[in-house]
Amino acid sequence: MSSVSITISSKRTAVCLLSGGLDSATALAFARRDGFACYALSFDYGQRHRIELEAAARVARSLGAVEQKTAVIDLRLLGGSALTDAIDVPKDRLASEMSSGIPITYVPARNTIFLSFALAWAEVLGSSDIYIGVNAVDYSGYPDCRPEYIGAFEHMANLATKAGVEGSQRLKIHTPLIDLSKADIIRAGLSLGVDFALTHSCYDPDEEGRACGHCDSCQLRLAGFAAAGTADPVAYRP
Amino acid sequence: MSSVSITISSKRTAVCLLSGGLDSATALAFARRDGFACYALSFDYGQRHRIELEAAARVARSLGAVEQKTAVIDLRLLGGSALTDAIDVPKDRLASEMSSGIPITYVPARNTIFLSFALAWAEVLGSSDIYIGVNAVDYSGYPDCRPEYIGAFEHMANLATKAGVEGSQRLKIHTPLIDLSKADIIRAGLSLGVDFALTHSCYDPDEEGRACGHCDSCQLRLAGFAAAGTADPVAYRP
Repeated sequence: MSSVSITISSKRTAVCLLSGGLDSATALAFARRDGFACYALSFDYGQRHRIELEAAARVARSLGAVEQKTAVIDLRLLGGSALTDAIDVPKDRLASEMSSGIPITYVPARNTIFLSFALAWAEVLGSSDIYIGVNAVDYSGYPDCRPEYIGAFEHMANLATKAGVEGSQRLKIHTPLIDLSKADIIRAGLSLGVDFALTHSCYDPDEEGRACGHCDSCQLRLAGFAAAGTADPVAYRP
Repeated sequence: MSSVSITISSKRTAVCLLSGGLDSATALAFARRDGFACYALSFDYGQRHRIELEAAARVARSLGAVEQKTAVIDLRLLGGSALTDAIDVPKDRLASEMSSGIPITYVPARNTIFLSFALAWAEVLGSSDIYIGVNAVDYSGYPDCRPEYIGAFEHMANLATKAGVEGSQRLKIHTPLIDLSKADIIRAGLSLGVDFALTHSCYDPDEEGRACGHCDSCQLRLAGFAAAGTADPVAYRP
């Protein structure tokens, strides 16, 4: 009689939203640190900065995600944002301009759509944990980056799913970065093994993928690295 | 000096989720009755019964929708349902089997995803009204057809959007069918001018688009027409 040894991983699974930017890469690293087997979910949503999808794939591999999927959803169909429409990305804005009001780069209901897909995948996987790299400090102008929004989504999600209705499992939306400054996020990412050279943040990269250094996202990133006292390893165009 | 007269419609706009089935057609008719200029939103989500997309276009035209858009989102990517996966659609189930538990035709987080897209379009249009034909009577097994779920989505949506944050507009999710039986829905639809011959409900139609008459959706539809005392005008295969 032969003995067969079967090893079943006891790791719990988490769905991790991964854009390829430094925030979502760090959120994925938090999920890994928390002991989850990570399923990374990215979106091809008609964004101009599609190079971030390549960054997402690199980051998922680098941080040991079990699987990465990219959902194609054409948000250009609905319009309304500089990131998907023929509207210019604003450049060289002051921090005060960035933090007041809701920026033109806001994509209507984007996080709600992304979290909805994460919820669907979590339900299929039998997972009760979703990680999202939202941040209420630098992105205070985005309504769907605030803790009260995340809490409301979590409440809704627990009424939307089989597991929630049957009471067998409570879904949790993890937002490990929500109260961190950009510098804190960079420090946390470095300590958790994120290779920021693999990430991409620029809203308006050139053909070679080099960052512009002037859009809101580049400016927040550069200021964050400066405040963290370390150099940004990605390439900027001269 | 010439005089130019410009007429701007003062009608408020509503985004109406429209699958092409009889419920969503009736919900659209309610929105029209409520005085809204209707923007119909359909989804090509990898469903097997794609013929319903043609039905949605016919229904939108017939009920005078200002515009109809079809968002392509591949839910097959995530799997988990008989409507999108290689799982057999159940046939000839008893009413008691249909109403107990959550059916295999349930698509994980489908209404959450659909409502999220509706929310995005509503935000772009400046609309504060969304219509969805969910029904808690015949679809009691679907967690995302219950009033408490809809209320939680509405609450979340008002925290997710510019208008909600600025307090300038409160988003409302209208569910005119939620407490109606299938027979009531059919009667209401007929009184509101819905041509049910244009609608499509079957989960498993043949190549000519004829309904099977045996899946849960056909059985609910046929029982509804019988209870309403009128004939279903769509074609069933022999």
